Amino acid sequence: MAVARRDSFDCHALSFDYGQRHRVELDAAARVAQSLGALKHIIVPINLRVFGGSALTSDLAVPKAGVSAGIPVTYVPARNTIFLSFALAWAEVLGSSDIFIGVNAIDYSGYPDCRPEFTEAFEQMANLATKAGVEGRTRIQIHTPLIQLSKCAIIRLGAELGVDFRLTHSCYDPDQKGRACGACDSCRLRRQGFREAGLEDPIEYISENF
Amino acid sequence: MAVARRDSFDCHALSFDYGQRHRVELDAAARVAQSLGALKHIIVPINLRVFGGSALTSDLAVPKAGVSAGIPVTYVPARNTIFLSFALAWAEVLGSSDIFIGVNAIDYSGYPDCRPEFTEAFEQMANLATKAGVEGRTRIQIHTPLIQLSKCAIIRLGAELGVDFRLTHSCYDPDQKGRACGACDSCRLRRQGFREAGLEDPIEYISENF
Repeated sequence: MAVARRDSFDCHALSFDYGQRHRVELDAAARVAQSLGALKHIIVPINLRVFGGSALTSDLAVPKAGVSAGIPVTYVPARNTIFLSFALAWAEVLGSSDIFIGVNAIDYSGYPDCRPEFTEAFEQMANLATKAGVEGRTRIQIHTPLIQLSKCAIIRLGAELGVDFRLTHSCYDPDQKGRACGACDSCRLRRQGFREAGLEDPIEYISENF
Repeated sequence: MAVARRDSFDCHALSFDYGQRHRVELDAAARVAQSLGALKHIIVPINLRVFGGSALTSDLAVPKAGVSAGIPVTYVPARNTIFLSFALAWAEVLGSSDIFIGVNAIDYSGYPDCRPEFTEAFEQMANLATKAGVEGRTRIQIHTPLIQLSKCAIIRLGAELGVDFRLTHSCYDPDQKGRACGACDSCRLRRQGFREAGLEDPIEYISENF
């Protein structure tokens, strides 16, 4: 969102209450949306627990032993497809042609729906799914400004653009107070990114060693 | 679903409570799913009224003057993209590679997300969005057995396959008892289809003349 604001876009922010165990991220999303000047922030309730199939939307345990090869159990089937579909619906109602999503295909867990092949195919489909495709109006664009950046580069970019990282949340398995576990893939990638960027991560972790 | 059953598929049925004014269609979906032997029928609540933008999900009036050129106000932005995204999520959890959707691009209201270009682009995207795409497993297929049939041909096919049309619902603007209005696009296309097929439509209409 900071990149979109830098590029002079007026932003409508969209988050999902999808049954994720780290539901606390929605409070962080609201704080961040406000701090970066979103015109509106909608949280859409969609219960992906009806399907299950992921450690984030069921009772499966979140792995804590380190980022490993292959697609981990934290993968939520078709999550980004669902998220982008709702964004597409809202964009069409608003008459907007630009959708931003913060996916990353470098320092990530190997999720298929974080790769450029996926977002490009989604963009192509989106232009056939909507009025834009039939009436030949403005082409819908899926922007992925972070997709080819390392976590270190993402953090440096955020810092340059004035992102207040105290407002943010990354952990998949926070405690009841919303504190980050420090050991899940998402915490590990974040902490390593801050370390490599030479910046201090301002959020609190339950466990300091990993 | 009758076509999928004819072709020996075990079926999981999926419907959406998306804020549609013809919510009564969900009771019909449950009856039809049961009568055709669905292993399971899930109704996913997703509130598309948060975005609005359609006569089906807002207080805009449903047109009753007849099917006209262009995309009508009953178009729900990105609806089939959202529906297929959830189907994709469930298919991936089930380990299924076949998704059926009853869209039609002949006797329809001109919705962009009912055309073959759209469903083909969705299929391509789906295979990049999921584990199937990364791990090179079975290809996901979007089946659209009705897409190139006239409404008359669809009704004849249904009758051949033993569909009990008394259980079905098509109207966009039913009354409080769930009776079809007889005058919206969906009622008009259905009634004309039955007439052309030389079959009697067994459901009740509020208005007999259109």
